[in-house]
Amino acid sequence: MNIGVVGGGAVGLLTASYLIEMGHKVTLYVRSETQAVHIREFGGSRDRKQFYVDEVRVSTNFKDEDFMMLCVKTIALEEVLSSIIEQAPNTPLLFLCNGMAHIRMMEELTQPVYAGVVEHGVLRTGIGSVVHRGVGRIRFAPVNELDQRFIQQLVGNEMKCFKFEQSEDYRSLLTEKLIVNATVNPLTALFKVKNGQLLNSPHLHQLARMVCEECCGILGVSMDSMWTYVQSVIRQTANNESSMLKDIRHERKTELDAITGYLCAEAAAKGFPSPINTFLYNAIKELELN
Amino acid sequence: MNIGVVGGGAVGLLTASYLIEMGHKVTLYVRSETQAVHIREFGGSRDRKQFYVDEVRVSTNFKDEDFMMLCVKTIALEEVLSSIIEQAPNTPLLFLCNGMAHIRMMEELTQPVYAGVVEHGVLRTGIGSVVHRGVGRIRFAPVNELDQRFIQQLVGNEMKCFKFEQSEDYRSLLTEKLIVNATVNPLTALFKVKNGQLLNSPHLHQLARMVCEECCGILGVSMDSMWTYVQSVIRQTANNESSMLKDIRHERKTELDAITGYLCAEAAAKGFPSPINTFLYNAIKELELN
Repeated sequence: MNIGVVGGGAVGLLTASYLIEMGHKVTLYVRSETQAVHIREFGGSRDRKQFYVDEVRVSTNFKDEDFMMLCVKTIALEEVLSSIIEQAPNTPLLFLCNGMAHIRMMEELTQPVYAGVVEHGVLRTGIGSVVHRGVGRIRFAPVNELDQRFIQQLVGNEMKCFKFEQSEDYRSLLTEKLIVNATVNPLTALFKVKNGQLLNSPHLHQLARMVCEECCGILGVSMDSMWTYVQSVIRQTANNESSMLKDIRHERKTELDAITGYLCAEAAAKGFPSPINTFLYNAIKELELN
Repeated sequence: MNIGVVGGGAVGLLTASYLIEMGHKVTLYVRSETQAVHIREFGGSRDRKQFYVDEVRVSTNFKDEDFMMLCVKTIALEEVLSSIIEQAPNTPLLFLCNGMAHIRMMEELTQPVYAGVVEHGVLRTGIGSVVHRGVGRIRFAPVNELDQRFIQQLVGNEMKCFKFEQSEDYRSLLTEKLIVNATVNPLTALFKVKNGQLLNSPHLHQLARMVCEECCGILGVSMDSMWTYVQSVIRQTANNESSMLKDIRHERKTELDAITGYLCAEAAAKGFPSPINTFLYNAIKELELN
């Protein structure tokens, strides 16, 4: 298939590299012309092995694809999406964004739409290079009932380290991922630790449990099964630094508003107390200032 | 008067220097022989001005005094107190310790006892030297109805920068100080900021308010007046690093158990939720490990 991968960050580069290995024709859409020029000239690299992308474009200049994966931050999503709607209005889309703030955007689209979550641990090590540090899955579910043929071709690929798995319900998929992110990201950013430390340190372990429990309460899901899931993702990505920690280290704006901020707003709307998330929200906002 | 000052830390040195300036004969009791030798030889210094202590002893070797002030950490209190009970069983005592864990110890003593709190900002800059960075008061109240003549002589001294003030009720005095410490210490240690930053940063301001509010709930005191008091102490000590931040920086054990730990235990005993203090308790325990 002709697959467009939108986003030249860690997840975008990882995804593009594996899709190429599966034999797909990949167009990578990146934000900056500098990155585009670099990857056109030198290719990308995954785990120090070079890969070549068929075409690299800037993500304001879309063409029709058989299928497109959106690997961009929620912060950048609105802008990218308006170009896609204009330039490739029929291309089926798979959203691989954190948070749940994009649900409304997805539900309003007229092309086939899927929502997915990435469970891989991946570290970007240069302008076009990544290291795949934790093997997980990409799980997805349809958001609308439009043409679902394209994404089915990805399911059941024989790669052990890069699997696509279909789920039933995109809302519970995003809910699970939201709680993982809300538990892992602010704590790792605040304490400047790798994900695995959340289970290795007894104090961070208790904090992670507290955060997870409050999130489950706010969203009305079962703590027992969710905590099991959260811990399994932490183990899979134990050696990884969370995106939020990386953003704080590089003095970039984090995805806090789409994750912890979303949960605080949900809690407020439901009249549910959210002291821990409110604490973490203010804590990370403070770190963003410095 | 012959006054014993027990503790060669920031508060002990500050207190000794001012009592000497008032004309009292001061014996300073310090933990290590090294510090004792140094202060005997070179004196102490406050704000770069030297002062001479009449006698320096190690705090396992007490003599009778007209009056003794205990400027030691709660962690060290039990040991010091058992020597005092043995060697100076009739000396009136003023406890200037953080937390409320020492209430029971105070109430069991047979000599005249007062409890007090220190509102000064003070920085220890060397083995015998301090800088007085924030002018406050020492407030105290009687714990038992025994002889109260000695401490009365300190009240109404004419120093503007080192005042003693009598209060009615030692429990509310310690409660106020506990809430100040519980609000200021863990947050400044976690974010590595001076006290004043808790009011200057909007995010830390909100966090401080949340902590204070939860503490007030646990101890059943009014948030409005307490928050006003907490803010006034923060302003008085704006340029100061809290003792807990200093302990974390110097990889020493903090007074967390006597402050936040005490509040968590109180909350648990009353069945009152304490998510914020529990969060901070685990957060600082984690910092103590590293």
